[in-house]
Amino acid sequence: MVNIGIIGIGRIGRVHGESITKFVKNAKIKAVADPFLNDNGKKWAASLGIENVYTDYKKILADAEINAVLICSSTDTHSPISIEAINAGKHVFCEKPIDHDVKKIRKVLDTVEKSGLKYQVGFNRRFDHNFRAIKDAVEAGKIGKQQIIKITSRDPEAPPIEYVKVSGGIFLDMTIHDFDMVRYLSGSEVEEVFAVGSVTVDPEIGKAGDIDTAVITMKLANGATAVIDNCRQAVYGYDQRAEVFGTKGAISIGNDSNSSAVISNQDGVLSEKPMYFFLERYMLAYAAEINSFVDAICNDTPTAVNANDGLQPVLIGLAAKKSVEKNRPVSIAEIKKDFSLVLD
Amino acid sequence: MVNIGIIGIGRIGRVHGESITKFVKNAKIKAVADPFLNDNGKKWAASLGIENVYTDYKKILADAEINAVLICSSTDTHSPISIEAINAGKHVFCEKPIDHDVKKIRKVLDTVEKSGLKYQVGFNRRFDHNFRAIKDAVEAGKIGKQQIIKITSRDPEAPPIEYVKVSGGIFLDMTIHDFDMVRYLSGSEVEEVFAVGSVTVDPEIGKAGDIDTAVITMKLANGATAVIDNCRQAVYGYDQRAEVFGTKGAISIGNDSNSSAVISNQDGVLSEKPMYFFLERYMLAYAAEINSFVDAICNDTPTAVNANDGLQPVLIGLAAKKSVEKNRPVSIAEIKKDFSLVLD
Amino acid sequence: MVNIGIIGIGRIGRVHGESITKFVKNAKIKAVADPFLNDNGKKWAASLGIENVYTDYKKILADAEINAVLICSSTDTHSPISIEAINAGKHVFCEKPIDHDVKKIRKVLDTVEKSGLKYQVGFNRRFDHNFRAIKDAVEAGKIGKQQIIKITSRDPEAPPIEYVKVSGGIFLDMTIHDFDMVRYLSGSEVEEVFAVGSVTVDPEIGKAGDIDTAVITMKLANGATAVIDNCRQAVYGYDQRAEVFGTKGAISIGNDSNSSAVISNQDGVLSEKPMYFFLERYMLAYAAEINSFVDAICNDTPTAVNANDGLQPVLIGLAAKKSVEKNRPVSIAEIKKDFSLVLD
Amino acid sequence: MVNIGIIGIGRIGRVHGESITKFVKNAKIKAVADPFLNDNGKKWAASLGIENVYTDYKKILADAEINAVLICSSTDTHSPISIEAINAGKHVFCEKPIDHDVKKIRKVLDTVEKSGLKYQVGFNRRFDHNFRAIKDAVEAGKIGKQQIIKITSRDPEAPPIEYVKVSGGIFLDMTIHDFDMVRYLSGSEVEEVFAVGSVTVDPEIGKAGDIDTAVITMKLANGATAVIDNCRQAVYGYDQRAEVFGTKGAISIGNDSNSSAVISNQDGVLSEKPMYFFLERYMLAYAAEINSFVDAICNDTPTAVNANDGLQPVLIGLAAKKSVEKNRPVSIAEIKKDFSLVLD
Repeated sequence: MVNIGIIGIGRIGRVHGESITKFVKNAKIKAVADPFLNDNGKKWAASLGIENVYTDYKKILADAEINAVLICSSTDTHSPISIEAINAGKHVFCEKPIDHDVKKIRKVLDTVEKSGLKYQVGFNRRFDHNFRAIKDAVEAGKIGKQQIIKITSRDPEAPPIEYVKVSGGIFLDMTIHDFDMVRYLSGSEVEEVFAVGSVTVDPEIGKAGDIDTAVITMKLANGATAVIDNCRQAVYGYDQRAEVFGTKGAISIGNDSNSSAVISNQDGVLSEKPMYFFLERYMLAYAAEINSFVDAICNDTPTAVNANDGLQPVLIGLAAKKSVEKNRPVSIAEIKKDFSLVLD
Repeated sequence: MVNIGIIGIGRIGRVHGESITKFVKNAKIKAVADPFLNDNGKKWAASLGIENVYTDYKKILADAEINAVLICSSTDTHSPISIEAINAGKHVFCEKPIDHDVKKIRKVLDTVEKSGLKYQVGFNRRFDHNFRAIKDAVEAGKIGKQQIIKITSRDPEAPPIEYVKVSGGIFLDMTIHDFDMVRYLSGSEVEEVFAVGSVTVDPEIGKAGDIDTAVITMKLANGATAVIDNCRQAVYGYDQRAEVFGTKGAISIGNDSNSSAVISNQDGVLSEKPMYFFLERYMLAYAAEINSFVDAICNDTPTAVNANDGLQPVLIGLAAKKSVEKNRPVSIAEIKKDFSLVLD
Repeated sequence: MVNIGIIGIGRIGRVHGESITKFVKNAKIKAVADPFLNDNGKKWAASLGIENVYTDYKKILADAEINAVLICSSTDTHSPISIEAINAGKHVFCEKPIDHDVKKIRKVLDTVEKSGLKYQVGFNRRFDHNFRAIKDAVEAGKIGKQQIIKITSRDPEAPPIEYVKVSGGIFLDMTIHDFDMVRYLSGSEVEEVFAVGSVTVDPEIGKAGDIDTAVITMKLANGATAVIDNCRQAVYGYDQRAEVFGTKGAISIGNDSNSSAVISNQDGVLSEKPMYFFLERYMLAYAAEINSFVDAICNDTPTAVNANDGLQPVLIGLAAKKSVEKNRPVSIAEIKKDFSLVLD
Repeated sequence: MVNIGIIGIGRIGRVHGESITKFVKNAKIKAVADPFLNDNGKKWAASLGIENVYTDYKKILADAEINAVLICSSTDTHSPISIEAINAGKHVFCEKPIDHDVKKIRKVLDTVEKSGLKYQVGFNRRFDHNFRAIKDAVEAGKIGKQQIIKITSRDPEAPPIEYVKVSGGIFLDMTIHDFDMVRYLSGSEVEEVFAVGSVTVDPEIGKAGDIDTAVITMKLANGATAVIDNCRQAVYGYDQRAEVFGTKGAISIGNDSNSSAVISNQDGVLSEKPMYFFLERYMLAYAAEINSFVDAICNDTPTAVNANDGLQPVLIGLAAKKSVEKNRPVSIAEIKKDFSLVLD
């Protein structure tokens, strides 16, 4: 039985709390901590039968009975708490991204490596039934040698402008999931990135120095070309599609919706929109990723999404950002050099 | 080269005329005849380069250079003109149904049999790409032993009430195509029929002694059960689907539409309605059936839809009609007995 | 908080046990009972933290703290235990069917009526997202006046022949769910039934006096016609489709599969098969039905599937059975008369 | 009645010949010419009732009764014959591309402009039902302001290597259709191009200095971003999809196949592959484009695909080629400068 402490019980912390209670065997939430803890939070914790509710996460780190922590606090605290938790001997599940600062991520990697503890990053889509079906087919050789990988990822609506301003930009905040998917589906590394960015949704996002629409082309080490298209707003809902095309065939996934109902009437043949957003669409994936994390602890196996998997998409995101600024392709090697990283 | 005369240049006669001109090799329309011939009809014939335009079809029968006639006149004239044409030594393509009266159909069969001439009935759906795909799969053994056959056939709108009154009733006018499909897809014969009829579209149809909605269940000689559902009106358009289910799998066909375009917006995910009605939906099938008829003449092979194929669906239709009246299953044997038919 | 006792912890009892633990708020399983209780069962109960594990269900009925029982034992015990439980003051959730014997069901109805307690029958499909989408559209008037209702229900494989022999026949064992769906989707009652049955899957089923393939046509009180097609075996999996066609349009639902992945290769364009069987397909529906039951208790509202909803499909099933035997339509009124029922 | 002469009766010349005979009103093929004319060609012309069959196309240009010519000869002859034909007073339909050499195309444009004659380029996809459905929706404002345009265009198999060597490269030979589609669907102009090319199908194509796989990103004047992915070989067939995403929704089109048949069996749910290749897929579009050309002549209206529409995709193709060579984005302005063009 793994005793878990959750640090941060905002939206995503609560998603994990509830799915652990429902779906994760061999795990128990022993404590939660949140600096903004209020009555609502206490009530929520009580409803799940969580005994210890703190404002200070250090109490979780100090509890010798707690084996693992979930870091669900704000992004800027991910890397310092990661290091603190590892040093306190806890296995760590950290929400994405580990940090926007490559050097800080690097520090986490080094700390994890020396510790021998488990570290998993919250790229939940790797645990989704659709994306996994692609991965399985690719690994089973059904697609042959990969040639083109395509990912469409569009949100139903843009986040509040205040959030956009501290988000690290679309590539580190939103596309980072898609960069991870390119690595996951291909099983290869991105070598070079060319990105086109535009502001087509909200001029305020442009004023904040960000973009809301992007098309990113990537050359992969395995010879394939990947392309992602993103938008902060699709009026028809959360659009999450992907395709891998190779010498033996292509595999593609569509959106999930709430039912398969189709209405035919004078206006046409109408199906349901995609499920609204990530909480609805990836609910089961959130449960599966924590199950996987707990299994890695129990069986002492590598985590399915390790610290390096947390670093690479950030490097790709930084390359994309620079590519838009310079209007030229940018290699991952150049980004590493920019940050004086000696990474394998 | 087969010289063709078309008897009747109403809607369906013109469909055949145009598709022969465009698509049918080895055939030429030498003459058309229509008792209601007017300027519009003459202009139409001229546009296709048809030399001879008559009001009296007997002139077509008298033309020794004409090898084959298409009977596209009103239903009550089908059987007498069929016999006259065969006796004049012409191959005959006759629009469905041959007649509503089983004895008259029987006379046509006898005449055809003695003549050695080709006779084809206008069950155009046998030449449609979708229905043919089912037939091919069934014949290739992909479905295994047939268990259940389902046909959905709904018109976009009911015909004028005056037409309904002389149509012979829904089973002989509309369902007759579906009865033919049951025989075609299964390659088997219907033995017993149970039909439920109702008036859900237009009370006037009920007053005319007909029904506009029906579900017909059939026991087939091969052990399978078939079920047809019909309606004179589907607001979303011409609904033409079918499924054959067997021990090795199922094959189904959906509707055709004008494009594969799908619009996703705030209201949902919208595809196009089915193509409007039979002229749009089966345009290529009309051409293919005449091609097949001409091939049968040129190669002296059996026609793909022979006179018996014209008789059987009428027997099934009469059984369905009687089933609704008596509210009990009616066998084809009973119908044959009713008409003192000794049919193999 | 509703304290629940589960009577019978075979397959379906465990499904409910697990889904209550995971998904049902305001409910706790206080005890389970099973005459064939073994170590495996004890271990299962322990894994869910269930305190009391009995061989004798009467201990559950005797526990004053238990408010509600789930009857998941063999079908022949459903009606006597239902009555016993109600008399013991428990709310009852009873797996379908209540009984094969109409008079015994009637007794349950009478007992429930006098008791003022909640009684729900396990027609889980009413809680499925797809069927519910149809129901919602129908109730919202989107389909207009109903004309034709179609249900396809095929199992991936036939049950063991020993089970078939005691199952009450396909209509009471398998089609009963579809009869319930006809009532649920239409919001109307079945008045007359005509059924065609055949043995196309396994001759042993025929020898046991049962059929494995059926097409059932029903006249409904609202003027619509319903048709169900059933088969005990579909090699491609659990086929659960439905369509309601009406004057304003049609709504249909397809099968659910494990992912939306589509592979295009030299052989064609391949999608996944339907989810294997009822446990996979209706997992969330099982949770939803118990949630609904618990809500009815907590809020003192009518249950979503009451005792009469348990009776009606049995009457329809008996009519279907008689229809096959007599090869004629059989009305529900006739069945009621057969059983000397005076049911409104 | 437009009298037409066809110059070149290879594959595409015959496609046009046959579709004019079948589908194009108000047009008649008066002559064909082909330097490699043989018995097969003569027989083909005879079967369509074409009176004059030449080896020298100049005889067509000299025939005063011929109003219009179709230039279906080899690419290197397109621009000189275009100019010759215009100077002979003929309306011209010219297969794509007009030329690989921008200056030669420019000369054609100038000649056309002065002549007042009709000039249409063979971008047949503009007349396809699916692409037209997108265009119509975009023009009707259903998509709102365009944000992202995506085109997938993959051939079922690579052409012979000898053809590849003289093809002008993938961008001028294959992608040119997709560049035209970007312009057609968006109604806007491409301003800048970034292309990634690779050799994933056949190393011989690489040795010939060409690529067989490409992803091309384009910035458009209207603020949208377009992305095309190409491959010379898709084992599942001719893959022709597109999507336009905008502020009010998205519209996408899928592939056409020979039937809508779906087989469900133990292996899954199998649909048909896309239609094999361009002749099958775009047969009706070939007819429609000539119909449109003939209409433009008869009604003295602008052609639907004018000489400038022939030039622009070549400029985009040259930009794509240079982008791959230099590994940087290349603007259309830069290409114009390269060729000292003063265009618009």
